[in-house]
Amino acid sequence: MISKNQTKFIQSLKLKKYRQKNSAFVVEGEKMVKELLMIYRQATSFVVEQIDAVYATKEWLAEEVALVNSCHDVLFEEVTKGELAKISQLKTPNKVVAVVRYLHSKNITPLVAPLQEHILVLDHIQDPGNLGTIIRIADWFGIKRLYCSTDCVDLFNAKVIQATMGSVFRIAPIYTNLELLLSQAQLQGIPVYGAMLGGEPIKKSVFKEYGLVVIGNEGGGIRTSLQTYLSHKITIPRLGEAESLNAAIATGIIYAIINL
Amino acid sequence: MISKNQTKFIQSLKLKKYRQKNSAFVVEGEKMVKELLMIYRQATSFVVEQIDAVYATKEWLAEEVALVNSCHDVLFEEVTKGELAKISQLKTPNKVVAVVRYLHSKNITPLVAPLQEHILVLDHIQDPGNLGTIIRIADWFGIKRLYCSTDCVDLFNAKVIQATMGSVFRIAPIYTNLELLLSQAQLQGIPVYGAMLGGEPIKKSVFKEYGLVVIGNEGGGIRTSLQTYLSHKITIPRLGEAESLNAAIATGIIYAIINL
Repeated sequence: MISKNQTKFIQSLKLKKYRQKNSAFVVEGEKMVKELLMIYRQATSFVVEQIDAVYATKEWLAEEVALVNSCHDVLFEEVTKGELAKISQLKTPNKVVAVVRYLHSKNITPLVAPLQEHILVLDHIQDPGNLGTIIRIADWFGIKRLYCSTDCVDLFNAKVIQATMGSVFRIAPIYTNLELLLSQAQLQGIPVYGAMLGGEPIKKSVFKEYGLVVIGNEGGGIRTSLQTYLSHKITIPRLGEAESLNAAIATGIIYAIINL
Repeated sequence: MISKNQTKFIQSLKLKKYRQKNSAFVVEGEKMVKELLMIYRQATSFVVEQIDAVYATKEWLAEEVALVNSCHDVLFEEVTKGELAKISQLKTPNKVVAVVRYLHSKNITPLVAPLQEHILVLDHIQDPGNLGTIIRIADWFGIKRLYCSTDCVDLFNAKVIQATMGSVFRIAPIYTNLELLLSQAQLQGIPVYGAMLGGEPIKKSVFKEYGLVVIGNEGGGIRTSLQTYLSHKITIPRLGEAESLNAAIATGIIYAIINL
């Protein structure tokens, strides 16, 4: 059972301004909600402050009875398929929708050399699928820190959350002023690698054990005001005719070459 | 101006059965249609048999007057934004939509060693964005041949076409029976590399100068009946916690490691 007010509230979370106003977002689908609950139970998420409620069909609640019983402080509400369709943002509504309050990412800690890893920095990534996939890549390669320019697509956009396949609960980007971040890195002598056309072929590049890796916007690449902070310009050589590589593919290739 | 019948015909092409019945598909958006016309003018596409018509706003026709004039045998029709919205499959209709007749991919030529490259083989890729992105990756790395199992998503699905960013006009997959294809390779002693969990770490793998690279389904990987034909099982080591990598990301990483 779900009230009209709750339905309206959940529907409002399709829009960034209401997500921000309420520090809330929606997680949908069996796989994602299961991952959410397991991470919440372990209290290990950087993102999840609290789960308001999980709205699920009778069928899902029966299937997941063990998980449901192990999450004492979570409110589970049984809903009909019709009710679910109203709150779902998917074309084919799944069996379960969770409403989550998020933690605000902490203030940016200054970068101090040496770092532990190659931190990922995203400049104006606009496509939700790309941001989600990039978070999943970071999680695959064990990257713990990720910065986004403030004009990147919102992390809590349903399509971003979906594309992370659960990785968002382990690694959430910090939205920040990249000029300040990169200038900090520069002061500390931390290498800043930027993926750019015309850079040095990535296999010839020598990577320090740590640094920042900057990935630019899908159409425009890394903005000019950030390019001055790059200590190394790197490129994935083109052997065929495609005009460009997708931003998430480039990220995957760069991290594979650095880390494997 | 566009007739009701034409509108209805173009709308029908949202469905695979009508695309197949008419050997026709739709190309949308400024960048994609421009690429289509340029490749068509050069008569170098493996995919485009004929362009039925290009429906464009007055604005687009004025902007692209040089291109329009250089394509003598293409019919350009001016349409209103309202008419465009009716034939568009995009949420935000663009300025231009083209209707294209496609060439049927030729019968599969037997594989004879030695090959010229690492041919890409896709087993049951279901997501249109993934297939499109993979075609773009192949085009980036100069891979000329690509095979798909017959249950892969349809190449002429609008989302696939869009995600290729024009690469589909240069490299189109051949849909075929992969059991037959891989058994041919086996008979010829052509190496067949398969991306699988638990395979050999890709950086430790030794790649011959040519071979087949098999990428499996998003959820299920390479189907069991094909696994027997793999001469090498390879894997991208996981350093973090994500459960899996997206199929297109895996493809990009594997081709980067083999080819760069």
